Amino acid sequence: MCRWMAYTGHSVYIDKLLYEPEHSLVHQSLGARKSEVTVNADGFGIGWYDEHDEPGLYHEVMPAWSDCNLKNLAHHIRSNLFFAHVRSSTGTATNRSNCHPFSYKNWLFMHNGQIGGYDTLRWHLDRLIPEHLYPFRCGATDSELIFLLMIANGLETDIHQAVTTTLKQTEDLMDKHEIVEPLRFASTLSDGKTLTVMRYSSDDQSPTVFSKLFEQHIVVGSEPLELSGDGWILMPEGHIATLVPTQPFNSTPLF
Amino acid sequence: MCRWMAYTGHSVYIDKLLYEPEHSLVHQSLGARKSEVTVNADGFGIGWYDEHDEPGLYHEVMPAWSDCNLKNLAHHIRSNLFFAHVRSSTGTATNRSNCHPFSYKNWLFMHNGQIGGYDTLRWHLDRLIPEHLYPFRCGATDSELIFLLMIANGLETDIHQAVTTTLKQTEDLMDKHEIVEPLRFASTLSDGKTLTVMRYSSDDQSPTVFSKLFEQHIVVGSEPLELSGDGWILMPEGHIATLVPTQPFNSTPLF
Amino acid sequence: MCRWMAYTGHSVYIDKLLYEPEHSLVHQSLGARKSEVTVNADGFGIGWYDEHDEPGLYHEVMPAWSDCNLKNLAHHIRSNLFFAHVRSSTGTATNRSNCHPFSYKNWLFMHNGQIGGYDTLRWHLDRLIPEHLYPFRCGATDSELIFLLMIANGLETDIHQAVTTTLKQTEDLMDKHEIVEPLRFASTLSDGKTLTVMRYSSDDQSPTVFSKLFEQHIVVGSEPLELSGDGWILMPEGHIATLVPTQPFNSTPLF
Amino acid sequence: MCRWMAYTGHSVYIDKLLYEPEHSLVHQSLGARKSEVTVNADGFGIGWYDEHDEPGLYHEVMPAWSDCNLKNLAHHIRSNLFFAHVRSSTGTATNRSNCHPFSYKNWLFMHNGQIGGYDTLRWHLDRLIPEHLYPFRCGATDSELIFLLMIANGLETDIHQAVTTTLKQTEDLMDKHEIVEPLRFASTLSDGKTLTVMRYSSDDQSPTVFSKLFEQHIVVGSEPLELSGDGWILMPEGHIATLVPTQPFNSTPLF
Repeated sequence: MCRWMAYTGHSVYIDKLLYEPEHSLVHQSLGARKSEVTVNADGFGIGWYDEHDEPGLYHEVMPAWSDCNLKNLAHHIRSNLFFAHVRSSTGTATNRSNCHPFSYKNWLFMHNGQIGGYDTLRWHLDRLIPEHLYPFRCGATDSELIFLLMIANGLETDIHQAVTTTLKQTEDLMDKHEIVEPLRFASTLSDGKTLTVMRYSSDDQSPTVFSKLFEQHIVVGSEPLELSGDGWILMPEGHIATLVPTQPFNSTPLF
Repeated sequence: MCRWMAYTGHSVYIDKLLYEPEHSLVHQSLGARKSEVTVNADGFGIGWYDEHDEPGLYHEVMPAWSDCNLKNLAHHIRSNLFFAHVRSSTGTATNRSNCHPFSYKNWLFMHNGQIGGYDTLRWHLDRLIPEHLYPFRCGATDSELIFLLMIANGLETDIHQAVTTTLKQTEDLMDKHEIVEPLRFASTLSDGKTLTVMRYSSDDQSPTVFSKLFEQHIVVGSEPLELSGDGWILMPEGHIATLVPTQPFNSTPLF
Repeated sequence: MCRWMAYTGHSVYIDKLLYEPEHSLVHQSLGARKSEVTVNADGFGIGWYDEHDEPGLYHEVMPAWSDCNLKNLAHHIRSNLFFAHVRSSTGTATNRSNCHPFSYKNWLFMHNGQIGGYDTLRWHLDRLIPEHLYPFRCGATDSELIFLLMIANGLETDIHQAVTTTLKQTEDLMDKHEIVEPLRFASTLSDGKTLTVMRYSSDDQSPTVFSKLFEQHIVVGSEPLELSGDGWILMPEGHIATLVPTQPFNSTPLF
Repeated sequence: MCRWMAYTGHSVYIDKLLYEPEHSLVHQSLGARKSEVTVNADGFGIGWYDEHDEPGLYHEVMPAWSDCNLKNLAHHIRSNLFFAHVRSSTGTATNRSNCHPFSYKNWLFMHNGQIGGYDTLRWHLDRLIPEHLYPFRCGATDSELIFLLMIANGLETDIHQAVTTTLKQTEDLMDKHEIVEPLRFASTLSDGKTLTVMRYSSDDQSPTVFSKLFEQHIVVGSEPLELSGDGWILMPEGHIATLVPTQPFNSTPLF
């Protein structure tokens, strides 16, 4: 299981969120409390929006905590909407092409979870990627695959619909191949303007997603950034939410 | 265009061939004379056979000339059949999954060349990989793809037939999509016992393959390992050859 | 020999200078025309000033041309004063601690050249680094060493004096040890406000430094960024200059 | 705190010890039980002896568990005396020059521990390295420094004497600078023939060193390689021992 966080609000330097909180994502990478494995050191990435339409991206295969570039970049890059992800591989190689967040045009996506039986299903799922999106299949992860299927399923026009279609499509294929391992999916995506989070699983054991509203910004992530957890709300399973920096967290059932 | 070399003969430390000749592969990586680009610094790899059936492999994304690990490993690993490759990317990312040689069971394969219009054809070609070989599609290169198609086309039972079927299959698809860039293919493969080399192109401009027979071994590669070129024979275009350490180079037309 | 470039002027995205010119630094890294070696692929780095006092830094051991992070960062980071460097090692290892530019507080420094007989002199020169600066001796290059000696010799109060003292100190030690290889030094440094360039050698064969004044900015580097070289002025040997974005290049003899 | 293991005995493939035991060093790297930190992912290295006098070396900055090269090399390299180390940095950068084991001629050394107040003392300690050994000061760690001081203090003629002189020299300097943090030192070294282990600290809290004698080999390391710990003997603090594959562990007081 991976860990991630996303921020939307007034423009801040990324290190304010990525390093400074007592249980920041970089801190979590050394020993996540709420996930099944204890270390997220199989690559990491950040993605951020600025005055360009397409987001900035930085991916690296070292552990986040020891990368001096990340520390320096996070101190010098400011953004009003950014993503950060630390990876714990569920099998695929540690290389930059397999690091989150993934991007497509103005979109960013990152994910914590798995497709049950992915080794069996990858051949079938990759064949569902339409020809025009295939150049964006750069790595071998299930996460990149889910993102491309969501785009194929209409993400750019209807996020909710694209997500449910893709989850359904995946679960149908899992059923057809009698996969017993679950589908788990705790994800976030953005077009640069809005921030959408989703929490779902086929076995009611979705990876956690917490959020907290501050005065001018909202933060969402796999774990609270403070050890006390005060003010952090656990998103309900099977829900999707669009985050607005000035409004309380409000989610809708996915199905 | 990449550069590669392969060795078969009595057991030697790899650095005898990889570093010591005046125009060794590591030397070539800094400025190949006979290829179109001047630098091969987009990753490299070695593969070698020993008492195991499956070959040893080492892949790295740094330039070969500056990797202290490669220098050390080549000084300590001995083999009677080994491959070495320095990569100059034709577009795909510099990561270990895209480095040659590629392996499958007891087989090694490496390649210098390109599939014309690969960006257009990749979606179609990847769909030709059968389900049972798809777990071996780890990267995104045309080289790995060609290797998997050759296996699908019967490499383990008839090398010559598998190669020609794969080249034909690829050219047919290129024709169908009206690709004008050529197919170029200068490759070597081994099952751990025999060493096969191939040189082919759709436009009679195949990347070079030279070989030289020594007393107890034979060396083949993109360029002669000596600047004089004395004793190095250029393999004819459109041919395939099986190298035997004690016999002169002898090739057969592919088609 | 390495290659570098520096920019001062109105705020621009770094890629405007680092990638877009026909003979940009990334282009130069694949085959420098005016330097002795043809490839600068032993690590690279950028440093830039923004609203912080201390500069941003990004160092990497891959060749600059194949690093997707560099391409992305250069497209998203804007600055009115930045440095970029591609390294061709003269012996020390390819790791991030040996990549330029080097930083100290609000200062940046980068260098193309060598201390003749550095292997012999390193023990002696390192002992000249004062205790309070020793924590900044992170790598093993002669470049980092020269930078720390310049700081020890008063860089923060008198740049010209600190440079000449350091060059003299180095040459005296070279003389004492009867080193015959030359000292060569083509460097640039900044405190975040002014940009200083220096060109010197003990054998009148200083590495080149060219500059060109544009409407609102000035660029300086190892080579002209345009193949024609139109408008690029070669800095005289043995000189030092402070660059002002709106004034023609004007240098002073170092000694 | 780092973790390490060393092996001496009949020739084996390294993966038999590095991967196969239930609590192998690669397993330990993800969550060491007996050390203060939970992750050793700031680089790793192996060193091994074969028919050359000088040992083979492989260093990498990725976590050991995700490096496919390590897995492959360990499966193909056999040795009758080898070292393996997973690093958890106490402050210095994650780069190959800072990875254990360190080598000098036919010698290997690796270390778990720290010099208290190293940031303060580094300038003083580096000045104790004699000129002829300074070219071997490639990184910035206290471990490499201790190794070079031991060589300066006569390691090649009297190991026990060189170790105690170096520990005394270091503690004297710590006292002189009124350092309160302890010196901790759990190390192993070899000349290719004998394997020496040492366990010491200035505060009676030496990092653990366990050993177990098998039929034809002996293994020593920071932790038992089996979770049960059956047959693993904890080395007494303040002792030094020379390991012989066919004899029970037998140590001598250092002082």
